[in-house]
Amino acid sequence: MSQQQSALLTDLYQLTMLQAYFLEGMEEPASFELFVRKFPSHRNFLLAMGLEQVLEYLETFGFTENDCAWLESTGLFRPDFLDYLSALRFEGDVDAMPEGTAFFPDEPIIRVTAPLPQAQVIETRLINLLQFQTMIASKAVRSVLAAAGRILVDFGMRRAHGAEAALLAARASYAAGFAGTSNVLAGQWFDIPLFGTMAHSYIMAHDDETEAFARFATSLPAERLVLLVDTYDTLEAVRKIIGMASDGPKPSAAPRWIRLDSGDLGALAADSRKLLDDGNLAGCRIFASGDLDEYAIRALMAAGAPIDGFGVGTRLVTSDDAPFLNCAYKLQEYAGKPRRKRSRGKATWPGRRQVFRQHDGQGRMAGDVIALADELQPGEALLQPAMRHGKPWAPRANVLDAARQRIADHLACLPERLQSLEPARLYRVEISESLRNLAACMERV
Amino acid sequence: MSQQQSALLTDLYQLTMLQAYFLEGMEEPASFELFVRKFPSHRNFLLAMGLEQVLEYLETFGFTENDCAWLESTGLFRPDFLDYLSALRFEGDVDAMPEGTAFFPDEPIIRVTAPLPQAQVIETRLINLLQFQTMIASKAVRSVLAAAGRILVDFGMRRAHGAEAALLAARASYAAGFAGTSNVLAGQWFDIPLFGTMAHSYIMAHDDETEAFARFATSLPAERLVLLVDTYDTLEAVRKIIGMASDGPKPSAAPRWIRLDSGDLGALAADSRKLLDDGNLAGCRIFASGDLDEYAIRALMAAGAPIDGFGVGTRLVTSDDAPFLNCAYKLQEYAGKPRRKRSRGKATWPGRRQVFRQHDGQGRMAGDVIALADELQPGEALLQPAMRHGKPWAPRANVLDAARQRIADHLACLPERLQSLEPARLYRVEISESLRNLAACMERV
Repeated sequence: MSQQQSALLTDLYQLTMLQAYFLEGMEEPASFELFVRKFPSHRNFLLAMGLEQVLEYLETFGFTENDCAWLESTGLFRPDFLDYLSALRFEGDVDAMPEGTAFFPDEPIIRVTAPLPQAQVIETRLINLLQFQTMIASKAVRSVLAAAGRILVDFGMRRAHGAEAALLAARASYAAGFAGTSNVLAGQWFDIPLFGTMAHSYIMAHDDETEAFARFATSLPAERLVLLVDTYDTLEAVRKIIGMASDGPKPSAAPRWIRLDSGDLGALAADSRKLLDDGNLAGCRIFASGDLDEYAIRALMAAGAPIDGFGVGTRLVTSDDAPFLNCAYKLQEYAGKPRRKRSRGKATWPGRRQVFRQHDGQGRMAGDVIALADELQPGEALLQPAMRHGKPWAPRANVLDAARQRIADHLACLPERLQSLEPARLYRVEISESLRNLAACMERV
Repeated sequence: MSQQQSALLTDLYQLTMLQAYFLEGMEEPASFELFVRKFPSHRNFLLAMGLEQVLEYLETFGFTENDCAWLESTGLFRPDFLDYLSALRFEGDVDAMPEGTAFFPDEPIIRVTAPLPQAQVIETRLINLLQFQTMIASKAVRSVLAAAGRILVDFGMRRAHGAEAALLAARASYAAGFAGTSNVLAGQWFDIPLFGTMAHSYIMAHDDETEAFARFATSLPAERLVLLVDTYDTLEAVRKIIGMASDGPKPSAAPRWIRLDSGDLGALAADSRKLLDDGNLAGCRIFASGDLDEYAIRALMAAGAPIDGFGVGTRLVTSDDAPFLNCAYKLQEYAGKPRRKRSRGKATWPGRRQVFRQHDGQGRMAGDVIALADELQPGEALLQPAMRHGKPWAPRANVLDAARQRIADHLACLPERLQSLEPARLYRVEISESLRNLAACMERV
C-alpha cells in the first residue's frame, strides 16, 4: 500500500500545528490515546482491528523531498520548518490492545507516546486505519454469531468505499471468523482463502442455461464448482443441473454448490434441497447471497433454511447500520502533566491509562477497570507493548491468524447476553479511584 | 493510485468466468451498463461521479507477470489461460454520462462495449469506483443545498473507509460545490483548495489557552488563521481572543475565523458573534464543525445562526444515511443479441440503451426517456463517448472543474421540488416504446 503510506495523507491542520510546535520548540513527550466514546446502539462489544496497518505506517513514516517541495508551494510553510519536516520520523512508543481484543466504551485501544510533533502528525491516518477495521470486524462478527457455524464469505468489494476499504474489509472479516473473500488482491496480500462462484452475465451470455452450466463445469476443478441458479427460474435451473448430472457421460458436472441470489431465499433453499436430495445430489450444498446481513442470516437460520453458506457483501463492508464509530485520539499527557478536554458533552478522562480485565471462575469476562497506566490492578492488562523507539516490540508473524484466534477465544469468554444481536445490558467498566481522583483534582485547578 | 490499479483488485469469479470464456472462445462484443435501481429514500436525484478514475483504470488495465504467477499458485487456472490473461488489455468503447450529470432510477450512467472477457473482468472495480463517488457527490450536494452559499469544507478523512475513500470523497464533494478539503494528499492530487484549523490537542498541550492562541497566530499567515475556541469554555475563549487583539502590540493576532466544535452551535455562534462585534472583531468569521450533515446545517440556517462556514466530515464521507447504492452492472447485449435478467425482483430492461433529457421553456429539466441506443428521441442524449478502442475519446483536462461546473448547472435546472432534502414526487422517467416492445418480445420467447 505504498501510496496509501504517503505522509501527506493527513489533515492540513496537523502540519500547521507542527509548524507552530517547531517554532515554539515544543518537543516534549506526549501521550495520545484512541478510544470509542459511545457505541452504536447495536454493538454490545467492539473488536480492536487495524493495529498491523498502523505499525506498518509508523515504521515507514516520513515526508519525501517531493512532498516537502509541494508543501512549500502552498505558501503556508517556512523553509526551516520544511527542512525539519523532511527529517521527521516516528521514533515513539506504542502500546495497544492486540488485534481481535474485545473492548468497551471509553477504553483506550492504543496509546502513542512520542515527542509531541510525532505523536500528533500521525493522528489522522491512525484513526482512519483503526476505526475502519475495528468497525468491520465488529460488524462481521455479528454474522458469525448469527450463522452458527455456516460458511461465510466476504462478497463486498464492489460496494466497499474504494480499494483500500475492500482490501481491509476482507482482512477484518476474515479475522472475525469469515471463511474467506472473493477479493483476489486481498487473498494475495493477506493470504486469505478465496471463494468464487459465477455471475448472471455468464448465464445470460449463453443462449441456453443448461449449456452455460455444462461449459462452466468443464472449466474448473469439480471441487470448486458453484452454479448460480436464479438468472431466470431458480427451481427450473436446479432441475437442469440434476438432469445434467444424471444423464450423459459427465457425472463430474455435478456442482459442489448451487448459489441462490434473489427471491425468497428460505423457501427456495428448502425446495432446492428437496429437489437435489431426490435427484441424487445430496452432496450438493446450497449457498445464498443477495442483500444479506446478520439479521437476514438469523431469520433464515431460525426458519431452518437448509443453507450451508452465505455470501455477505454490501452491508458488511459498509457496516451499513453503523458506518462510523464515535472515536477520538486525545492528548492525555504532555511534558509529564496529564491533560483533559472539557468541551461540553465531549469531556475526557485525563492521563495515561491502562485497561485491566477480570474473568470469573468459568473463564468468562467479568468486568474491566480503566486505570492509570502505572497503577496496579487485578486482572489482565489489555494494552501491551507494540512498538518502542519506532521499532516493533516483537517480530510480527501470522498476525492475522493470531487475531482470528483471539476473536474466537474472546467470543467464547464473552458474557452470553453480549453475544445477542440485540442491545444487551452493558458490560461492567469501572474507573479506578486514582483516575477519578486525578480528574477531580484537575477540575479544581 | 498505482497499487489500487492492480488487475487483481477484482472478484475471483471474474477470473474463473474469463477462463471459461477463453475455453469456449467466447469473445464476441458485449455491452454492459451500470445503473441504480432503487434510490435511497432521501435522494431525489443522484450525481454521476467517478468516470475519470474508471477511465484511468481501463487505460492502464493489465495483469503483470507477478499477478499471473500468483494466480497459477492458486491451482484454479490453466497455463494457456494465464498466457492469454497476461496479454489481456482493455480495448473497448465506453459511453457515459459526464461527471456531474444528475440522473434517476434505472438510467444507465455508463455503457461498456468490448469483447466479452474485457467487458466482464473490469466489472468489480468499475462498480467500486463509480458507486462510491456517485454516492458521495450525491450526499455532498445536499449540504450545498442546505448551506445556501456558506463555505463548506470536507473534514472527513479520519473516518473515511480507508485512504482511497478519503481521497475520492474529497474529490466528489469538491465537485458537488464544497470549497475544499482538509486532506492534504487530495489537495495535491486533485488540485483542490486546502483548509485547516487547529486541534484541541494544540490548546491542551499549552498550559494557558491565551498563550496557545498567541503562539499559533505567530506561526501562520494571518489570512489563514483559525482559532478553535471550545476546548474549555467557548465564550471565555472568544473573550481571550478579543483581549489579545485589542491590547498589546500585535493586532495581527486577530484571527480571520474562530471555530466552534461542540455544544449548542447555534447559540454559541450567536453569543460569539455578539462578543466579536462588540469587541471590534466584526471581520472575524465563525466556522462550525462537529457531527454536521445537511440536516444539522439546515436547522442552523433556519435558526439564523451567524455561521459563515461548516466543516462536514464523518456523515459526508460515509454517506451515513445511505452508505451504498443499489447499483448493478448488467449484460445488455452479447453477440448482437439483447440480453435480460429475469430474477424475481431484479428483472432488468434489455438491450443497449440511451437516456434522452428534455428541458422546459425556462431551461428546467422536464423529463427523461430511457430508449434503445440507436433510437432517435427528442432531447439531449446523456451518454456521450468517453473511450473508443481503449483510448480516450477526447483529451481530458480540468475534468474536476468541469464536473463542478456541470453540477452547478444541473442544480440550476433541477425542478425545485427535487432540491428539497425531503423525499419529493418523482421526476418523470419514461421507457420508450421500442424498449418496451423489445422487453415484451423477449418475454414471449
